[in-house]
Order: sequence, then structure tokens, then C-alpha cells
Amino acid sequence: MPIAVETFFLSPDAPGTLQAQVQQMIAEGILSGRFHAGEKLPSSRRLAAHLGVSRITVTLAYTELVANDYLSARGRSGYYVSDTAPVPPVYSPQPRNADRVDWSHALVQRFTGGDTPVKPKDWRSFRYPFIYGQTDPTLFDHANWRQCAMRALGQKDFAALTDDYNDRDDPLLVEYIARHTLPRRGISARPEEILITLGAQNALWLTSRMLLNQRRQAVIEDPSYPAQRDLLTHSGCRLMPVRVDADGLPPEAIPEGTEVIFTTPSHQCPTTATMPLARRQALLARARTLDALVIEDDYEFEMAFLARPSPALKSLDEDGRVIYVGSFSKSLFPGLRLGYMVGSEPFIREARALRAAMLRHPPGHIQRTAAYFLSLGHYDSQIRRMSQALHDRRREMEQAISTQGLTIAGRGVYGGSSLWMQTPEGVDSGRLAARLLDESVYIEPGAPFFAGPERPRGYYRLGYSSIPTARISEGIARIAAAGRALL
Amino acid sequence: MPIAVETFFLSPDAPGTLQAQVQQMIAEGILSGRFHAGEKLPSSRRLAAHLGVSRITVTLAYTELVANDYLSARGRSGYYVSDTAPVPPVYSPQPRNADRVDWSHALVQRFTGGDTPVKPKDWRSFRYPFIYGQTDPTLFDHANWRQCAMRALGQKDFAALTDDYNDRDDPLLVEYIARHTLPRRGISARPEEILITLGAQNALWLTSRMLLNQRRQAVIEDPSYPAQRDLLTHSGCRLMPVRVDADGLPPEAIPEGTEVIFTTPSHQCPTTATMPLARRQALLARARTLDALVIEDDYEFEMAFLARPSPALKSLDEDGRVIYVGSFSKSLFPGLRLGYMVGSEPFIREARALRAAMLRHPPGHIQRTAAYFLSLGHYDSQIRRMSQALHDRRREMEQAISTQGLTIAGRGVYGGSSLWMQTPEGVDSGRLAARLLDESVYIEPGAPFFAGPERPRGYYRLGYSSIPTARISEGIARIAAAGRALL
Repeated sequence: MPIAVETFFLSPDAPGTLQAQVQQMIAEGILSGRFHAGEKLPSSRRLAAHLGVSRITVTLAYTELVANDYLSARGRSGYYVSDTAPVPPVYSPQPRNADRVDWSHALVQRFTGGDTPVKPKDWRSFRYPFIYGQTDPTLFDHANWRQCAMRALGQKDFAALTDDYNDRDDPLLVEYIARHTLPRRGISARPEEILITLGAQNALWLTSRMLLNQRRQAVIEDPSYPAQRDLLTHSGCRLMPVRVDADGLPPEAIPEGTEVIFTTPSHQCPTTATMPLARRQALLARARTLDALVIEDDYEFEMAFLARPSPALKSLDEDGRVIYVGSFSKSLFPGLRLGYMVGSEPFIREARALRAAMLRHPPGHIQRTAAYFLSLGHYDSQIRRMSQALHDRRREMEQAISTQGLTIAGRGVYGGSSLWMQTPEGVDSGRLAARLLDESVYIEPGAPFFAGPERPRGYYRLGYSSIPTARISEGIARIAAAGRALL
Repeated sequence: MPIAVETFFLSPDAPGTLQAQVQQMIAEGILSGRFHAGEKLPSSRRLAAHLGVSRITVTLAYTELVANDYLSARGRSGYYVSDTAPVPPVYSPQPRNADRVDWSHALVQRFTGGDTPVKPKDWRSFRYPFIYGQTDPTLFDHANWRQCAMRALGQKDFAALTDDYNDRDDPLLVEYIARHTLPRRGISARPEEILITLGAQNALWLTSRMLLNQRRQAVIEDPSYPAQRDLLTHSGCRLMPVRVDADGLPPEAIPEGTEVIFTTPSHQCPTTATMPLARRQALLARARTLDALVIEDDYEFEMAFLARPSPALKSLDEDGRVIYVGSFSKSLFPGLRLGYMVGSEPFIREARALRAAMLRHPPGHIQRTAAYFLSLGHYDSQIRRMSQALHDRRREMEQAISTQGLTIAGRGVYGGSSLWMQTPEGVDSGRLAARLLDESVYIEPGAPFFAGPERPRGYYRLGYSSIPTARISEGIARIAAAGRALL
């Protein structure tokens, strides 16, 4: 691509002759990596006109730059950044002076420094990636996704692609979710009770912004999803972690004064516990006594290959106090950033207004592509294929874990894509994970899932949504060996 | 698509026989519009197994539903929702009981009720749409956008499409913005100083969340963009509207105690005023005196066809106190939801963490598609084509306005895509706009752009980015006629 003439500016109070300024401008562009070798400079006529200087000034500057090997002249076709110019590998403009702004004062709050662990960018290069929640290219129906995306890019869908929806959503997607997705969870909802979000994270964030501030008290499960705990911490509310047991969140442990309860009843994150029906009813009764709202994060309900999932907590809710959060991140792919929430109309109306202020709406094209993928039945086929593969992998996992004598601390009764594991007595899962990196094995240490300063160090999560079945037994063997070495 | 067996649930404490319950479940699905005519029911064997009832129970229920014309039996292929079943046009499940939740107490804040006007969904059906900020299908390079989207959907870009980027952005897009887009505004920035956002709205929202609370004071231009004023109002800060003049925001009118200044120097929204260099320098000096931060919303800078745009305010900033907000909504399309912000590293680092908590990252696919569209030069060609068309339309606008004797209150000196207009003395632009709807003319009344209770009623905005040149003169004539009729 030629270098645009519009990127050149003369500074009114710069020192030196005009020719020297032009030379310096170009040399700096090359030395900082902004211009790449082989890129074409504007013609001397155009640059001169743009800068309001004489053409000879630019020509002399160019000639000088050719002599210094910054540029090369290619006959009548013009000037190019020389192939042997000192171009650095990345663009790094000269650092400016130090800021005169005291950022510690200017910012009303800090958002960095949370518990959310950083997953390695290069996880695909691991031979044994027991990573959670990423996409397996061998299971995702990439071909049909492309087809649906192409259709959504068509002339007929031009408005759905390009329009400013303002606070609205793609009606096709909302209708599909209402008629087909939610009934699978026993939920009936009208379009006014549904909001499309930028993934479940965005739904949880909207909820926290609407329901929590420094004067409110909220309960989260402990352990829980660190990104959720981080965003609730930002709200400034009194955050009460309640330790889960083998059946998930115990309702009787929810303290007085709680106004909002965050829970993952279908498949507790990260322990994978499923809350039995009796406890679900007890949880709703407890919420009613407290007059609290319940935020149900129903992630991954589609991955049911061992048993039928129970209906969502929301399906039992007669008070309108459950806000249901769903996501396509696990069943399609996390980079899609598409989720949804279901709640009473007064709540969704405010959530819609808040979402419009924050970001207007999730991009039309991804909403429409997802609507096609769902309504043409590709989604259901993919879920079946994924469930089959996860079922195979789960069998292989349990087999290998049993062979190697490792300890499972939690396993989803209807399926899922991860196991919650316990290390051998005294082995720190952070050290275990670090040691396994050298073995090309990726596991997730459990400590960041726990709240507070005294975090149990003996747990880790093994995802099996991205590791090929054939590698599971060797991967588990390596984990076992590393565990023994740390004893 | 067949009706999924997973959407059927028996309620443990429901009254009536099992057969009656199955019948009712299906009848309700049809009557609510969840099942559509022609959709196939699960086989009696599958449904019976799923519900844990005997097959004869389901068969009898189906037979009864056929007799009542809810279903039709098609020989051996199974049962379908009958073509003459009483299916309503839209899905509307039975309303639930009234909520037991007092939403006025449960919500910590209201977000509805702002000033942001709702644009008509059907604006494309207007013959004379003087709408602002929407896409003209005749100018947008849809074919190459599709090409780029296809490429971004390819096997090579699988990770960019599907991965959870967490708090990161597409490095291709960031590099393009750093090397090509920002230099056009005289800005040099390293990748650590750039954050991709879900449109400019999202950038402004992040900024307000990071810099404002009830104890802070902020200045906005008056008139200004209503959605911006709404989101600043949500922050609870002391919001001081400062009336703009023909050169934009007057620095000397910014009150003591101001900590954050929101401004649109290149092209004031909505008056289109361009701030001269001397005033930009005075604005920065005033900000330094106050130790205030400046948020520069540089929307639409690409639409420069009359004169070269001045460099951004950010390019003059030596203190690190300017936060620059850019967007692809006007130059590509608003449904894309893609913008970016540039600021000092400590600010961008916190913004990145806040964005990750809110929504993680803008979808990978749209970032990569935009990166291709930009780096293959399609964007620059499109800007040239749009500028040419807007130039033609602008000439036609000014011509027609002059012929009809209408009054321009503000026009961008380097271009833009709208004019700020004044009604004839005493004519309310809200009434003018309402009257013009019958004439298939869409204009934007000016009152919502103003802050406070006493809003000037004599202004309106005429966008010319979506109206064909050939219709401008008739559209303007209709506005003039409607204005005369209201005198």
C-alpha cells in the first residue's frame, strides 16, 4: 500500500529548513517502523502541494534520502522505502515526554490486579492442552458457519449487517432463542424478557451494574469463576463467598441481608456439582425469605451426554426473581462474544437501556450469522457431535485417571467438559502446573477460583474440550508423574 | 426443523393424567406460537422415553390432538403440527403471575428515560431520508467487505475467529490503526496506547466509568450528542454544559473545578463547527491550568472533501491529558460496532481491564475483517468514493437550501455529512419534523441535542449521507414548504 499523503504534517514551530523537516519526517517514519521496506512515497508534486512547500524542496529531500539509503528511486515510478533501509521489526514511535497527569488521582477506580488468570496465547502449541472453554477445530462446524456468515453478508441482509440497531436486537435470533433454546431449559419467555449480550460476561456485568453498589450485599459461590468475582468486586458491594458442597450452593449458608445471589446450579463452576431439585426449591425459598434476586449462570447446559440436564432454576421461578444468563461461547466459540439474559420485563428494559449506553448492541452480522446457524439446524448437529466427542473423552479421562491413581474432586453428573481434580496430599497445584509446562501439558491451578487470602492450593481443573482423545492417557500419565515428583 | 424432544418437560406436581399433561403441553406450544404449522413432533417412542412415560400414553395424546386438528398424521413419517392448527402470528407465551419483586427497590439506578432520540426503524422506506450516520448501500463497498469477511473466516484465521482474546485485541488491526490511521491525525501511538472498543459509544462509556463519579465535575458541549450526555448523566457526576459558538467549545467558559472535558474539536456535534488552531492551543492551556483531562471525540474526520482537516487535538498534547476516540461507524457502517481509543499507557491499561470485565473483547471476526479491509486499501478507496459523493450532495444541498431560502446555522469547513439548520422564526423543529413524516421526509429535530429544561426549538440537523443526490432538491423544497405552512 502506498504511504498516504495525509499522514504528513509540518509542525509550525519546528526548527531547521523546510527541506530538513521533510527529510526528518520521512527518516523518522522509517526508523520507527511506521513505513515498511518497499512502500511507495507520495509523488514529490503531491507531497509538496499537501504541505504547501515548493516541489523542489521535496525533491531535494527525497534525493538526500536516496543518498542515505532510506529511499530508492525506481525510474519514473517514484520513490520507495529502500529494501536496505534500517526498518525495525515492529512499529515503535519515539516515546513522548513523561505525562503531566497524575493517573492515580485521575482514575476514580482501578480495574487491573484482579484474580482472572491469563491463559497462555500459545495454548494451541501444547501437546496436552487440558484447557477449558476453547474451541476444538475438529468439532466446530466451520464450513456451515462460513455458509451462514456468507448468507448474513448478502444483499438481502444488508440492513441487518449495517444498521445502527440502537437498543434493539436481531429479531430472528431473539425468536430462535425464545422458541427453541429456552424451552430446552423449561423456560418460556417473551421477546421483551430477552436481551442479547456480548457473551455471558457482559450479561453478568450488566446485572452487577444494575443491582449492586456499595450499599448492597451479594453472595457468590466459593470457589467460583474468577472473572465473575473480579467484576463483582468492581461494584464495591459487600461480597460474601459461600463455600459450595457436593450439591452446589447450600441455601441455608446464605447470610441475612443478602440481596443478590450468583449461582451456577446446573453445573457449578469450577467443581461441576449439579444442584438437586430439592435444593433448587430450597434456594428459591431462601431467596424469597430474603427478598433476594438470583442470577443463574447456566453455562454449558448443552454438553449433556451422561444424563438429561434438569430444567433451569428459572423454570421454577414464580416470583420473577431469577435472572437467567446463557451463552454460545462454549457450544460455538468464545471469540463470537454472544450470550443472552432472560428476566422480568422491567429488568430487561433497564438492562437494554444500560447496554445501549455502553455499546449500543452486539454487531448485527454476528447476531444474524448465529440466527442462521441455529435455525438451519447446524447448531443441534454440532451439539450432538460435540457431546459424542466429549463423551468419548470423558470415558478416556476417567479411565486414565483411575489407572494413574489421580483423585477426582468433582465431576458433572450429566456431562460437561471438565473435571475438578485434587492433587496428592501436600502438592501445590500452582507448582504442579508450572512443572507441567515443560512437559507440554497445560492444566489450570485451582487457587484463583477461591476467594480471600487463604486459598486452597490442592485443586486443579482439567478441561477436555480441546485435547484429542488419543492424547488423554499420556497427558494424564504426565500429570501423575509430575505430581509424584513433587511429593 | 423438527421440534426437539429436549423441550418437553413434565411438571412433577401437575394435575391430570399423564396423557392429558402431554396433550396440554403440545396444545400450549401450538397456541402460544412456539410450534409452527408443518413442524414435526418427536416420534412417540422418543418422547415417551424422554418423559419416562409409556409409549401408549404419548400415542393416545397424539391421536387426540389429531382429532382436534392440532396435529396431522402423515402415514409412517410421523406427526406434524397441522396446517390448520390455530397458530398465532408471533410467539407469545402465557403471561406469568405478577412479579413478587419490587423492581424500583431492586435496581440501584435507572437507565431508561434519557434524551437519546429513537430513529425510525423504517428510515429506508423514506423517500427523502435526511438521516445522519447510517450507511448508503450505493457507497459502501459491500463486495470487498464480503471478500475480507470470507478471508477472515478461513482456516488460516481460525484462531482469530474463535479464540477467547481475553483482554487483548487483534494485533493486525491495532498495527494498522497505529501505522496508518492515527498518523493521518498527526498522532503517533504505540500499541500499548491503543484499545479497540465496541464503537465510539463504548469508548466514551469506558472513559466515563474510569474518570467520573458523584464527586467529579465534567464539561460537555451544548448542544452535544444526546447519547453521550445520557451516559455521562448515568455516572452521577456534576455535568456542566457549556454553550458552543461558531468555533466550537470556548475554553474560557470552562468553569473552575472541571476535571474532565468532552469535546468534538474537528467537527462539533451537531453544529459542525471546526475549532481553529489557536483555540485548540487555548483549550489545552486551559486544561493544563485546571489539571483536567480532555476527551476528544474525532468522529467523521475522514469525510474531508472541502479542505484538509487540522491535526487532532491529541497531536498537540504534550501532557498526556488528551484521550482520543475514533470510530469506523461513519466511514464503514454503524452496525459494525468498531471504534478505538488512544491514551497514555496507564489509562489504556485500566481501560483494557475494565473492558475485559465488561465484555472481554470485540468479536475477533469483525476485528480481523476490518484489518483486512483497511490493509488491502479498500477503506481508502471507499473514503475517496464517499467523499466524492458527499461533496456532490453537499453542493446540491447548499444550492437547494439557497434556492428555497432556508437558513444554515452551521456547516463543516472541511466537509462532513450533515448541516445544522435553523427554522424560520417561531417554527418548532419538532413540529416541522412531525409534519414532514407525511411527506416521506425525515429530518432530526435539534432540541434533544441541548441540555437542560429550556431547549432551543428552532434547530434541526440534515444528514446527507443516505439521501441520493437527485432527491435532495425536492426534499429541501418539501422542508421549506412545511416550514412556511407552520409560520
